[in-house]
Amino acid sequence: MSYRVGVIGGGQLARMMTVPAINLGINLKVLAETENSSASLATTVVGDYTDLETVLDFAKSVDVITFDHEHVPLHILEALENQGLSVQPPSKALAHAQNKLVMREALEAIGAPNPRWSAVSSSEELDVFIAGNGPEVIVKTPIGGYDGKGVRVVRSSADVSDWFEPSALALLGGKLLAEEKVAFTRELAQLSARSPSGEFKAWPVVETRQKNGVCSEVLAPAPNTSSDLAERAREISQLISNSLGVTGNLAVEMFETADGKLLVNELAMRPHNSGHFSIEGSTTSQFEQHLRAVLDLPLGDTEVPKPVVMVNLLGLSDDVDFVENYAELMRSFASAKLHSYGKSPRIGRKLGHITVIGDTHESALATAIQARAAILGVH
Amino acid sequence: MSYRVGVIGGGQLARMMTVPAINLGINLKVLAETENSSASLATTVVGDYTDLETVLDFAKSVDVITFDHEHVPLHILEALENQGLSVQPPSKALAHAQNKLVMREALEAIGAPNPRWSAVSSSEELDVFIAGNGPEVIVKTPIGGYDGKGVRVVRSSADVSDWFEPSALALLGGKLLAEEKVAFTRELAQLSARSPSGEFKAWPVVETRQKNGVCSEVLAPAPNTSSDLAERAREISQLISNSLGVTGNLAVEMFETADGKLLVNELAMRPHNSGHFSIEGSTTSQFEQHLRAVLDLPLGDTEVPKPVVMVNLLGLSDDVDFVENYAELMRSFASAKLHSYGKSPRIGRKLGHITVIGDTHESALATAIQARAAILGVH
Repeated sequence: MSYRVGVIGGGQLARMMTVPAINLGINLKVLAETENSSASLATTVVGDYTDLETVLDFAKSVDVITFDHEHVPLHILEALENQGLSVQPPSKALAHAQNKLVMREALEAIGAPNPRWSAVSSSEELDVFIAGNGPEVIVKTPIGGYDGKGVRVVRSSADVSDWFEPSALALLGGKLLAEEKVAFTRELAQLSARSPSGEFKAWPVVETRQKNGVCSEVLAPAPNTSSDLAERAREISQLISNSLGVTGNLAVEMFETADGKLLVNELAMRPHNSGHFSIEGSTTSQFEQHLRAVLDLPLGDTEVPKPVVMVNLLGLSDDVDFVENYAELMRSFASAKLHSYGKSPRIGRKLGHITVIGDTHESALATAIQARAAILGVH
Repeated sequence: MSYRVGVIGGGQLARMMTVPAINLGINLKVLAETENSSASLATTVVGDYTDLETVLDFAKSVDVITFDHEHVPLHILEALENQGLSVQPPSKALAHAQNKLVMREALEAIGAPNPRWSAVSSSEELDVFIAGNGPEVIVKTPIGGYDGKGVRVVRSSADVSDWFEPSALALLGGKLLAEEKVAFTRELAQLSARSPSGEFKAWPVVETRQKNGVCSEVLAPAPNTSSDLAERAREISQLISNSLGVTGNLAVEMFETADGKLLVNELAMRPHNSGHFSIEGSTTSQFEQHLRAVLDLPLGDTEVPKPVVMVNLLGLSDDVDFVENYAELMRSFASAKLHSYGKSPRIGRKLGHITVIGDTHESALATAIQARAAILGVH
């Protein structure tokens, strides 16, 4: 007998779940979009996650369904749940990660700290929001955005006139999300896991550094962080996790402001880029914890004993494969832990990451950035 | 492009190589004996490793061949090498891990510390050895032994009369290995890796504790060990590795005697049970290092920053599956790292292991032993 977990989506998150599945003897099955996905080793079905029949058949072969991404239509998940199949996180929780307007409304209702925001369904409404919160504001498509896509900094509704085209607006659900442009001092992410039985464990809050809207570096635990701030970050994630009924991992991306406030930016209900440091940096990696949580098994320790830095490897070209730089990386950086996602190169694509544990964040970050340059062939 | 490593044998060592292969984006292929081996996830061929055609076809699909076990006939490996295929460790080195008499002769020739030993081809010769080294001595079959099998403590040649039957003796190559029964104070194991280019890295020497000839617990680094002793253990393994042309991992099992001597007991040229602690306990796990070494990539850091204990999980019955105790284990031992080998239960079978990192060996060992009792359902 072994536990059977079905993951919808064959990206790097599913790939990295394969490792704790091997360690724990969990039978991991992946429903991937293509034969040659990042998670091809654990792929048992190649098919369309928007097709009910495909997803239902897959779900019946496992004990629990979970996700590599948030894009499975809710009606499909509801159909699974109506048949008594276990979907973790459940569709009711996942709705908040699929639609940023639904998220803002829910966070407001439970008293989690939002930036100022408004649903806007016309240029006029947006211009009113800009007048009250500008000169610059953020406009987001409620659905379909990731890694900076579907997000714009605007000074006028004209900057998103394409999204207000009736046909585009209809696809987006009729409304856009306008948010104040928070004058943050830095970005933080709070990763945690919660099981269906309600057990909750959080890793220490981490600092995330973005480039062009994409996560570039993560420092764990977040340096120069008071225990009060860390505790508030933890409480916010526990409030959200409990109130929204999240199961498995929850990543809460937050802004820290100059006056010490925390404001929620985004939510993800799955393993998250901000938690990759935990593979080497914590007793329990986020991928193991997610599997344990969705199976309603007790959760593992989440302490981070030493400073850890993770840097993403984004493709710098469409044809240079970093495998040719392995020897160079390994020769010069014996402490760097390389993770390749098995993807073909493409400019801007997340191809892997490197983790370095150090005595200080400064030394680990310096090593990690040099190691990244070596593997990407930047000289 | 990606590196392709072919592993012959589908046991838990091949299974645990799958993890660093995923992390590093190495294309790992396994030639397994059965469909449902421990390494089934990475299995690409099910076949007979004593069949030249099968092994040759498999070897041509990868950049390098390496091993989960030592049992591939040398003439098959030599045939691969004669076709220019990369076999790591090469057949010339592996011969010493396949035949204990070949090993003793080679260790003597290079000046590595052997116990007193003799090749004996008759009862008379054995009785002479016993008279000189008794009252008890160890007799080993030169080939085919593992985990205490093929090893006997004897007081008279009559205790191994079955091995001296002409038909049995012929199968064993015509000679048995007789060794003094070393009055050791403890057993140590020195794990290292060497690449074809000659780079060598060793983990700290560890203490191994056996029950009934099978490894039961490993303490890393070996507690109460002088730097002189640790350095000698390292030098012995480097001498053997270099002199015998070992590539990939080398485990040297040693006896420590009351007067501080180290004597070589056994050699293994692959990842080894005594090195499982390194998965969580060292920057570079033995499985990652073995892959890097056989691919002639630079080797990773091998320091062990904190006391680590690994305990083996041996089956206590033929039908109790420890999966039913996962919740109990995880609830009570949040720091224990469980590794399941995905095998069906059988009395005495190695089904997995648990690793615990602690502030002291005592506390880690106590936790690990309690965790083992929990997962095996011993109350």
